[in-house]
Amino acid sequence: MPTDPTPPSPTINDIRTAAAQLEGRVVRTPLIEDEAAASILGRRVLLKAEVLQRTGTFKYRGALAFLDRLDPQTRQRGVVAYSSGNHAQGAAAAAASYGVPATIVMPADAPATKIARTKRWGAEVIPYDRATDDRQVIAEALAAEKGTAVVPPYDHPWTIAGQASLGLELAEQCRALGVEDPVVLVPAGGGGLCAAVGLALEAELPKAWVVGVEPDGWHDHVLSLAAGERTPAPKSVDSICDALLTAIPGEVTYPINERLLAGAVAVTDDEVRAAMRHAYAEAKLVVEPGGSVGLAAALTGKALGEGPIVAVLSGGNVDPATFIEAIRE
Amino acid sequence: MPTDPTPPSPTINDIRTAAAQLEGRVVRTPLIEDEAAASILGRRVLLKAEVLQRTGTFKYRGALAFLDRLDPQTRQRGVVAYSSGNHAQGAAAAAASYGVPATIVMPADAPATKIARTKRWGAEVIPYDRATDDRQVIAEALAAEKGTAVVPPYDHPWTIAGQASLGLELAEQCRALGVEDPVVLVPAGGGGLCAAVGLALEAELPKAWVVGVEPDGWHDHVLSLAAGERTPAPKSVDSICDALLTAIPGEVTYPINERLLAGAVAVTDDEVRAAMRHAYAEAKLVVEPGGSVGLAAALTGKALGEGPIVAVLSGGNVDPATFIEAIRE
Repeated sequence: MPTDPTPPSPTINDIRTAAAQLEGRVVRTPLIEDEAAASILGRRVLLKAEVLQRTGTFKYRGALAFLDRLDPQTRQRGVVAYSSGNHAQGAAAAAASYGVPATIVMPADAPATKIARTKRWGAEVIPYDRATDDRQVIAEALAAEKGTAVVPPYDHPWTIAGQASLGLELAEQCRALGVEDPVVLVPAGGGGLCAAVGLALEAELPKAWVVGVEPDGWHDHVLSLAAGERTPAPKSVDSICDALLTAIPGEVTYPINERLLAGAVAVTDDEVRAAMRHAYAEAKLVVEPGGSVGLAAALTGKALGEGPIVAVLSGGNVDPATFIEAIRE
Repeated sequence: MPTDPTPPSPTINDIRTAAAQLEGRVVRTPLIEDEAAASILGRRVLLKAEVLQRTGTFKYRGALAFLDRLDPQTRQRGVVAYSSGNHAQGAAAAAASYGVPATIVMPADAPATKIARTKRWGAEVIPYDRATDDRQVIAEALAAEKGTAVVPPYDHPWTIAGQASLGLELAEQCRALGVEDPVVLVPAGGGGLCAAVGLALEAELPKAWVVGVEPDGWHDHVLSLAAGERTPAPKSVDSICDALLTAIPGEVTYPINERLLAGAVAVTDDEVRAAMRHAYAEAKLVVEPGGSVGLAAALTGKALGEGPIVAVLSGGNVDPATFIEAIRE
């Protein structure tokens, strides 16, 4: 496994190599015309339906690409990951695709459905107490004991290269539709997907603008871009966007995002619920709160620029109670 | 407009011509691997996600193909249709794509959301009273007065030829996945989509079995295939499958289905809700009750044969209350 404390950005060649290796193993998710949003906004709106990815989230792309890069002997011993949600499933499914064991450190109070879905991929789930334990310490101790790698959720060039396969697909799909200069709205937690899409589009759709979208109160990219350095979020309000509750941009991802993002914006929980309702009614897609922030930014007129909009719907793992709350009339 | 009382089946050439004309104007909807269903059933399961079609339903394919075949002078005067749901939107959107007026006869007590969605395509909606009025008589009188065509919802060879574009896509997608002999589960109301898929697969995926799936109590195809003639449903129980409440197979569709269907099966409302819940949780798709019957048949072990299963998810226009009832834990 890699030992650099802050490995560098992946190159476009790393990204192309990762995408070629993922071909046929990840879902090429469709780019869908959202005519209802377009008629509201007076701009073309396209949805990158990554909720249709294996495990319901883009995290699978990065986890699988990371496993691809491990040396076979290390990989054979299995992997460890820590996550309360989507990355748990991504890492477990990636390990299952190699037929190697996965051990996932998850909070004891994680939603039962997320724990069950992770176990369904054959992973062993190790619970920890959010209040008293440090999940990263537990995961690293487990990995040292087993001689296995920890699969990083976002802040690693191999992970970013894998996630960037979404960006290469998007560039191809946009060009096929005659869209050369979209504003691409990407959910931002640690900033991995933003960086990944930014790097892919820099090479393949250079007129695109990539904008990071965060939950209000967890808008560390908004603050960081304004300050010109990694700046923590105020965490001043709760958010239903469980997948995006990362309080500071990643060390690997931030320099990429600082260079490539056209900006960052924040949305409220009510705006997120309205976007989930819109995706339900108009696009027939189930999108989780954190996966809906880009669409929320579009629908509330927060997209920058004036060209066509692409909203990346990055995940769909949402428990029914939260979904019902969003679509209830 | 056509005047034959019972026009014949479309030929495979009619179907190929219609599909070629629809290319780029209808969504090529994805065929999605349902690994969760496969692990339950021990058979590969694929979902044809037609909920992602324009207007959220396959009806758009047939309506647009019908308009394509009208002589331009007639078409220019606009169209009339009668429907309480999906066909209303399909016909309205098809007329909008030609920039001609649409008049849709809809029940006064149709769900507000369906009326609103139909109007959004620019259609004029004429309400009628389900208890006292005959919608077909109203529609034909309107059409005669305006000199326009009535767009048939299913029982017409032009409509079937257009809907069959779904079957041609499916055949290509199956072959690309190495699936030559699937059991294809198709929702059956009047039987138009069954006939359309049957004709397309007869030519392009001849080892496939096509099975019609109906709501319990509205299983007129089950009874008709058993009797060897068009036989009405008992309508013995209510059904949440509003899109499939047709009490007798079509005159054009039935001879096709009698020849090509491998069988027909029925599912209960509870089985339909479980399928909607499965599609929500596992496939991240919003499917309406009538669009879920094929998946319901698969999940309850009612699919015939032993090969891979394809469930056609034919529509996704469902009001939140019904959807919430299905996904509530």
